[in-house]
Amino acid sequence: MNSTISKTTEKTTPKLGITVGDPAGVGPELCGKIAALDELWEFCSPVFLGDPAALKAHHQSIPDSVALLPLSEAKTLTDLPLGPLFVDFQSAGIDGLAIGTASDVGGAASFRYIDTAIEWARAGKIDGIVTGPINKLALHKAGHKYPGHTEILAEKTSTDDFCMMQYSEELTCTFVTTHVGYAEVPGLLNFDRILKVIQLSVDALRSVGVMNPKLVACGLNPHAGEEGLFGNREEERIIIPALDAARAQGIDIEGPFPPDTCFIPSRRQTTDCFICMYHDQGHIPLKALVFDRAVNVTLGLPIVRTSVDHGTAYDIVGKNIADPSSLIEAIKLAAKLARNRAANKLG
Amino acid sequence: MNSTISKTTEKTTPKLGITVGDPAGVGPELCGKIAALDELWEFCSPVFLGDPAALKAHHQSIPDSVALLPLSEAKTLTDLPLGPLFVDFQSAGIDGLAIGTASDVGGAASFRYIDTAIEWARAGKIDGIVTGPINKLALHKAGHKYPGHTEILAEKTSTDDFCMMQYSEELTCTFVTTHVGYAEVPGLLNFDRILKVIQLSVDALRSVGVMNPKLVACGLNPHAGEEGLFGNREEERIIIPALDAARAQGIDIEGPFPPDTCFIPSRRQTTDCFICMYHDQGHIPLKALVFDRAVNVTLGLPIVRTSVDHGTAYDIVGKNIADPSSLIEAIKLAAKLARNRAANKLG
Repeated sequence: MNSTISKTTEKTTPKLGITVGDPAGVGPELCGKIAALDELWEFCSPVFLGDPAALKAHHQSIPDSVALLPLSEAKTLTDLPLGPLFVDFQSAGIDGLAIGTASDVGGAASFRYIDTAIEWARAGKIDGIVTGPINKLALHKAGHKYPGHTEILAEKTSTDDFCMMQYSEELTCTFVTTHVGYAEVPGLLNFDRILKVIQLSVDALRSVGVMNPKLVACGLNPHAGEEGLFGNREEERIIIPALDAARAQGIDIEGPFPPDTCFIPSRRQTTDCFICMYHDQGHIPLKALVFDRAVNVTLGLPIVRTSVDHGTAYDIVGKNIADPSSLIEAIKLAAKLARNRAANKLG
Repeated sequence: MNSTISKTTEKTTPKLGITVGDPAGVGPELCGKIAALDELWEFCSPVFLGDPAALKAHHQSIPDSVALLPLSEAKTLTDLPLGPLFVDFQSAGIDGLAIGTASDVGGAASFRYIDTAIEWARAGKIDGIVTGPINKLALHKAGHKYPGHTEILAEKTSTDDFCMMQYSEELTCTFVTTHVGYAEVPGLLNFDRILKVIQLSVDALRSVGVMNPKLVACGLNPHAGEEGLFGNREEERIIIPALDAARAQGIDIEGPFPPDTCFIPSRRQTTDCFICMYHDQGHIPLKALVFDRAVNVTLGLPIVRTSVDHGTAYDIVGKNIADPSSLIEAIKLAAKLARNRAANKLG
């Protein structure tokens, strides 16, 4: 490998920080597989954050087209060079790391990648972040008590109002609640939160070129409560007022519909985004229809962030069968969002 | 129309009571469309329960191959004749009935069809019931305060332990809870109920020839609670003990799995039935993947009962565009279940 001149030289080419994720998971394999995809780097300039040493354990290497830069050196630069770049974190203990299992070494390394990426995104050294899969247990072993990436990003950027979007060509959903117990959901639904998620969804869709998005909101109860027959009228008391307020802002949103009829083929075709009240309401149809090709986007952050829609997949690590499709889609979407954000700033 | 000799003469040919459903809904159109399907009546003998007069309003007629029998006459017979048969209820007010809207006339008529079908099934005059779509509002206008068919069937047959199955080639689900508010679900989950639903599911699958069915149980919480991280450990406290008890009975059941990963393509291929904790957990993937081709079966009743998986569809009534696929599938499944029940009784 050597410091070749980048194929991407346009000023508008966004630099994307791609965190490798847990070095014991499938992240290093996926990054090794995509590093050589020249066509992907024609419209964005990747800055991998990880440990090249960890790639070896996954039978992967960094191609010659990718420049290697030690973290210590990268830190001293105000501007990172364009072109495929791999920032070498030289993490402690990485050489003997057992793959396919959660460890403090893996957790500590993956936390440093994301922490640095956030710092660089805030400083403008990179234009967006694409996160590889991390392992919560490994994070916890390393002393970082976060449920996942999103909470790290929210804390480090002091963001209160954010939400998850799962984006795909076939089906896109945003979520009023996500990683909370089933029973907690009704207590977390309120007018402000639902309206905020609707607004964040519209902003995100406009960022990817859907200027007048068509939204559909799911109800909470079976049959959307059937006019009070089931449930505690959450639809009438909470959801409908939020949708009315969104419509008053000119947003095109229908619902709340019976959750099970939201995702029928004809409705999917005409809907740009479904506003889901809880995790499985949207994740069940996403996984059933799109499987793991959806991209996870965190809306509401001051920085662009997308993520793969799968975990570390320890069970298939080192077998060279991990599918990079979700990571590729996450990179494409981050590039789109970053370009649009840059254009808006210039405009 | 006249009393032709039936094409079905074998003694094992089950007689199926097909209730037309709300005469103002799509039921009469669907029954008119299928009445002439000779191939359908080669393996079962239909006894339509409805009002031929109502079919006229839907631009449908009863073909000559179907024998017409007034209700008063049918009541006097111990054995109904084999062969396509339409029992004419001559319901009050049916002639001037406005179609496409809920009325007391429609509610009263549809209740009489189902009430009679239950009585005949219990008396052995028919071998199973297939119910056309009814309208709850119409039922209520006629003074019958039931949420739907299932509750009528359970009450009239004094059945306590029953559950809903949605059956299709692509995906089959049974439900621990159904038409209750979102917030009520956790309080309704218990060991006995979950084990009962599992047992009913196995019995039903064996009835349709799947002798060693593979079941999968969904968790309640996102990620199935992720070992207590989300929720109130409903998986560990309630669901897992019920699955253990089922396994101790020799039942092949896996789970509880994260609900969103239950319905991925690879798992669907290897699973005969998913045990769902709540209505939308199973109905969302069913409607997304199978749309309205699933058949609703009530398990645990002393009689065979299947149903269309759609409502009265007032909005398309009289347009001759209603699709009889779901009714046809419901008839085929009822015939299979009735034949099997008869064989078991003989055996």
